[in-house]
Amino acid sequence: MKQICLLGCTGSIGEQTLDIIYKNPKDFTLIAVSCGKRINILKEVLNKFNSIKYACVSSKDDKEALEQEYKNITFFYGDTGLKEIIISSKPDLVVNALVGFVGFVPSCVTISNDIDLALANKESLVVGGEIINDLLTKHKSHLYPIDSEHVALAKCLEDKDRSLVKNLVITASGGSFRDLSRDQLKDVTVENALKHPSWNMGAKITIDSATMMNKGFEIIEAMHLFHFGLDQIKVLLHDESVIHSAVEFKDHSFLADLGPADMRIPISHALYENKRHEVDTKELSLEDLGSLHFRKFDIKRYPCVQYAMDAITLGGSMPCVLNASNEIAVYAFLDKKISFLEIEEIIFKMMHSIPNKLNPTIEDLIECDKLTRKLTLEEIERRRK
Amino acid sequence: MKQICLLGCTGSIGEQTLDIIYKNPKDFTLIAVSCGKRINILKEVLNKFNSIKYACVSSKDDKEALEQEYKNITFFYGDTGLKEIIISSKPDLVVNALVGFVGFVPSCVTISNDIDLALANKESLVVGGEIINDLLTKHKSHLYPIDSEHVALAKCLEDKDRSLVKNLVITASGGSFRDLSRDQLKDVTVENALKHPSWNMGAKITIDSATMMNKGFEIIEAMHLFHFGLDQIKVLLHDESVIHSAVEFKDHSFLADLGPADMRIPISHALYENKRHEVDTKELSLEDLGSLHFRKFDIKRYPCVQYAMDAITLGGSMPCVLNASNEIAVYAFLDKKISFLEIEEIIFKMMHSIPNKLNPTIEDLIECDKLTRKLTLEEIERRRK
Repeated sequence: MKQICLLGCTGSIGEQTLDIIYKNPKDFTLIAVSCGKRINILKEVLNKFNSIKYACVSSKDDKEALEQEYKNITFFYGDTGLKEIIISSKPDLVVNALVGFVGFVPSCVTISNDIDLALANKESLVVGGEIINDLLTKHKSHLYPIDSEHVALAKCLEDKDRSLVKNLVITASGGSFRDLSRDQLKDVTVENALKHPSWNMGAKITIDSATMMNKGFEIIEAMHLFHFGLDQIKVLLHDESVIHSAVEFKDHSFLADLGPADMRIPISHALYENKRHEVDTKELSLEDLGSLHFRKFDIKRYPCVQYAMDAITLGGSMPCVLNASNEIAVYAFLDKKISFLEIEEIIFKMMHSIPNKLNPTIEDLIECDKLTRKLTLEEIERRRK
Repeated sequence: MKQICLLGCTGSIGEQTLDIIYKNPKDFTLIAVSCGKRINILKEVLNKFNSIKYACVSSKDDKEALEQEYKNITFFYGDTGLKEIIISSKPDLVVNALVGFVGFVPSCVTISNDIDLALANKESLVVGGEIINDLLTKHKSHLYPIDSEHVALAKCLEDKDRSLVKNLVITASGGSFRDLSRDQLKDVTVENALKHPSWNMGAKITIDSATMMNKGFEIIEAMHLFHFGLDQIKVLLHDESVIHSAVEFKDHSFLADLGPADMRIPISHALYENKRHEVDTKELSLEDLGSLHFRKFDIKRYPCVQYAMDAITLGGSMPCVLNASNEIAVYAFLDKKISFLEIEEIIFKMMHSIPNKLNPTIEDLIECDKLTRKLTLEEIERRRK
């Protein structure tokens, strides 16, 4: 029986994690959850899982209101609360399904307390992969990726001799605008950007898929998770999102992981410590599907992937600049304050405005994140005048 | 350094095996070869590989002529010669690339002499899978499959917990006539039957692909190699022969092996003891290929697959009847003595004419093979009158 603390319980990954925990009561007990501002959904979770003893929300007001209603639960709030809930609840596993830089410090706290980490928060590895890997060597905790691409790579790499690996091949749907030229991207709307062709996900990651910054993040994650260089990580456009990723070996053959576009499969794989477990989902029928399509990935079409590759090549705090400017720009686009193509323009500008700090500490990264957010917001305001 | 005896050195698999041995002289020495009647090709092999000390041919006349020309090589001939060459040459590995029932006894002799066996001769497992598996438990030898489908399955199953496997998925191109209805099969020619859509192989196996008896054989092989039941082995029609086979797991995800349609990849995998090794072949580019296609496998369209499944369900000597009647009927079709659809009619008739012997010995199978050949030839003559 594994005791679980789920950070980000009201998002897409959070909801699907709850589904797996609920359907496997002999394997998992949910003892702690966090959410941001979706208090009504949180209440449903608290009412459904009697086992929850700790909860964390964003604001102090929400915390105080909830304390009146749920006398048997200990509440925390804010960034500090995210640290406290991990330390107080002492779970066997933290599922980090937070979105954005806010997930980074909780990942570090989890590992530093010798607690296993199932990681959906890709920003943790993007901004601080070296720090996370360094902590993992010093502590007893294990890191289990949740991203479908990285679970696919883990399945294909399992126990394989790394010297026989030629390339990791990360597949990409190409996002909502994959059929548009760069010229046509000028006038795209938020509504259209949110229509992902194959996955049903949260708003932030759906926009990151349309710009393919998400794929850039996944390249960086793959480097930190599997310890391959940038030159051994390839992107393959694949329309149907059926091949979740593949490994090319030196004998010119590939192993590929295929399955339905259902995040509960990789989430379950992480919860069961990188092991397969039966998941209640629709079967994939290649016969019924009929065909799978592939296109050449053209990095000029998706500059955000180039920026991510530049950021990891530069190293230091540059991936943090990349991530923070992207976060702010994406939310500004979702708020209709900037156009779709301005997202990449703003990231490019920030990466050339903020000095890179090599070998940053956690505190350095928190500072860099704050500074980048401030400068990115100023840049957005300047553009709106 | 592995010393190799290659049985069937002038066929398609034989030639490609020679290519791998030739290109990896630090790993392999060819000490013994066999062929049937292609003496000119054999001479090229003997001249190219100075390391060959033993050779076997079909006829006594050829043997005696070769003995005059190659004084330093010991020659054997006929079925007995195939046993003698294994025992005399004492190789580390026998590559059995013989076509048909003739390969069965050499497989048994190899294993019984504690010699490793790389097996392209699928008939060995089809007719005597139980005997082969029984010999493997009693001797120190290892069996390495060469069929692309079984190498693919081995790669996907490697070290996996078998209880998590839902199905083995064997892919099939559908053969030369995959776009024809059963009605249209009535008048097909030998010339068209020999045009395989994706693989360049010998004549016998190309016809077996067109009838899909080849796939029926592969189902039986997979059962014996991987110890799964018939209900866990599925066939998937896949036009491009890029996915060589796949394993479906209980978490509804698949692992698939992909690669160019080049038999040197699976041959190399077998020669290197089920390990990947660099192969000098064209790379597979999914981008350039653009798409992969799948069709539902309809067993009514391919009765030979049903006959193979019936034969393995009945067990005993019935797979031997299946194989022998198929061999004779396929060669009769290649000789234009019968039509394409008569192949399956004749197999069906033989399976219902020859009594099944349960728990057969090697000698029982040799008898059954002889009897079936005789009765099949008689049936073919009857039809021609």
